[in-house]
Amino acid sequence: MFRPEIKVLDCTIRDGGLINECNFEDKFVRAVYAACSAAGVDYIEVGYQADKKFFSPDKYGKWKFCEESDVRKAIDGIESKSKISTMIDIGRVDLDAIRPKKESVVDMIRVACYVKDVDKAIQHVKACADKGYETTINIMAISTALVPDLEEALKQLADVPVKAVYIVDSFGALYSEQIHFLVALYKKYLNPKGIEVGIHCHNNQQLGFGNTIEAIRKGANYLDATIFGIGRAAGNCPMELLLAFLKNPKFKLEPILEVIETEFIPLREKLEWGYIIPHMITGILNQHPRDAMALRAGKDKDKYAQFYRNALSGAELA
Amino acid sequence: MFRPEIKVLDCTIRDGGLINECNFEDKFVRAVYAACSAAGVDYIEVGYQADKKFFSPDKYGKWKFCEESDVRKAIDGIESKSKISTMIDIGRVDLDAIRPKKESVVDMIRVACYVKDVDKAIQHVKACADKGYETTINIMAISTALVPDLEEALKQLADVPVKAVYIVDSFGALYSEQIHFLVALYKKYLNPKGIEVGIHCHNNQQLGFGNTIEAIRKGANYLDATIFGIGRAAGNCPMELLLAFLKNPKFKLEPILEVIETEFIPLREKLEWGYIIPHMITGILNQHPRDAMALRAGKDKDKYAQFYRNALSGAELA
Repeated sequence: MFRPEIKVLDCTIRDGGLINECNFEDKFVRAVYAACSAAGVDYIEVGYQADKKFFSPDKYGKWKFCEESDVRKAIDGIESKSKISTMIDIGRVDLDAIRPKKESVVDMIRVACYVKDVDKAIQHVKACADKGYETTINIMAISTALVPDLEEALKQLADVPVKAVYIVDSFGALYSEQIHFLVALYKKYLNPKGIEVGIHCHNNQQLGFGNTIEAIRKGANYLDATIFGIGRAAGNCPMELLLAFLKNPKFKLEPILEVIETEFIPLREKLEWGYIIPHMITGILNQHPRDAMALRAGKDKDKYAQFYRNALSGAELA
Repeated sequence: MFRPEIKVLDCTIRDGGLINECNFEDKFVRAVYAACSAAGVDYIEVGYQADKKFFSPDKYGKWKFCEESDVRKAIDGIESKSKISTMIDIGRVDLDAIRPKKESVVDMIRVACYVKDVDKAIQHVKACADKGYETTINIMAISTALVPDLEEALKQLADVPVKAVYIVDSFGALYSEQIHFLVALYKKYLNPKGIEVGIHCHNNQQLGFGNTIEAIRKGANYLDATIFGIGRAAGNCPMELLLAFLKNPKFKLEPILEVIETEFIPLREKLEWGYIIPHMITGILNQHPRDAMALRAGKDKDKYAQFYRNALSGAELA
């Protein structure tokens, strides 16, 4: 599917950082940056710009904070036409500490929020846009958003200086028809104002790539993926599959395959992500992955049937 | 998606048998049969009915041949409302050796063929139907079939006594729009004659489940899946995901989760299947999985970039 408007964003380091407290070694970050650059990926997201008041540098690695000097060091000497992005979370960032774009190698700042926090997200976006950055808003846990709330949010966002607003299926709960519905809803409010629809899928039901395709078919143009699908819990849409699908001659698959071979196969021995039954269970039940992650960290990590029964009874609220 | 016409077929033992020469232990086969029965799966495929002239019983296990006594022993004492199916391959079966349905616990025989062999498949189907079996035709490697050949085949199949004709994406190469096209083409010829469309997807691009959903949306009613996605190379559409999606109250997820926990997690330590980069590469290139399987059996099993370059140059024919 060749459409010149399409922008691919690699969030390997940022979303992958959710499974190791952003403690990636410099060598790994440089390898990812080099591979994505050689592959022609449009944006490379290197981490969060979090406030150290909320996250201790003793626990979290440097990609939780993305100090300007650390980002510059990681990319130093690597040929690249890719732009650099970071993410900020509402209420966990010191907006005053973000330097003006002209003093930074970061090109885009993405604001992650729930639908209830869209007003705060707009304030964050404006602050970043005023400093000269490209911006997006990423509405997380979209599978739990009520449509009237979402429509109200999208109406407001149509007048905000963002490149794109993302559908973020944090729980990996959505099926294709729900993706189709959401893309159409986003487009209705955003496209007339020149704002693109973005898609960020989790892979709990092995639909990370399939749902990304469905979003593309319906008009989403900002596409998130991670190398070898790394990311929290079940992980994300795999970059290698997405680039092969897009067929745009500007993308090269081989650098991604190469870095999977050299960096991700060894890493997968140490960190867990991907299609694992407890994550599949939270996906089908439209639940946060936290219970599945807790299960996988304990001795009962393969007690799937019991976990399912517990998750079902937890879902019985009425 | 609740549609009463939908029939789910588990081919765990049959397609899974392609990675261990059908050498599953009785205990495992009984566990799969019990789980699928308790889950309410409509058909359970226990293996091939191959001719021992072509396959040595020294190398291949009993599920390559499905002797009546072996099948009866495997299901003995297990409560089940599921029907039993076997598969035959054109030219590798002794049709005269297939006993009449009234002497067999097998309910359905599925004939696998390439589009070029449809005439032979029709002959096989008629022989099995005459003996009293339900039948299907499964057109393999559909991603390499030329449309005029396929249309000619479908025209012929419309007058054959089959329950369903399957789209079999053997190479895991298809995307959703191609699935949509094929389902519509099959339906055009087959539905007016009361023949259903079937779907059997491989998971090379993590689209086994996603493409099955797309086929369902467009009207396919015979759905193949395997527990935990077991199957040749990248494996198949996972049964646990399919049942959770279908939401038909007759299906129960818990028995499938239970058998994954007890049987499939240990088995996965010994047998390899699933999303593995060489299989992804043959999928995106629409190639047979044999080269990837050979790579995975050797010392260079993780040399992805080199394998990709070789596969590309192998694809340069002109």
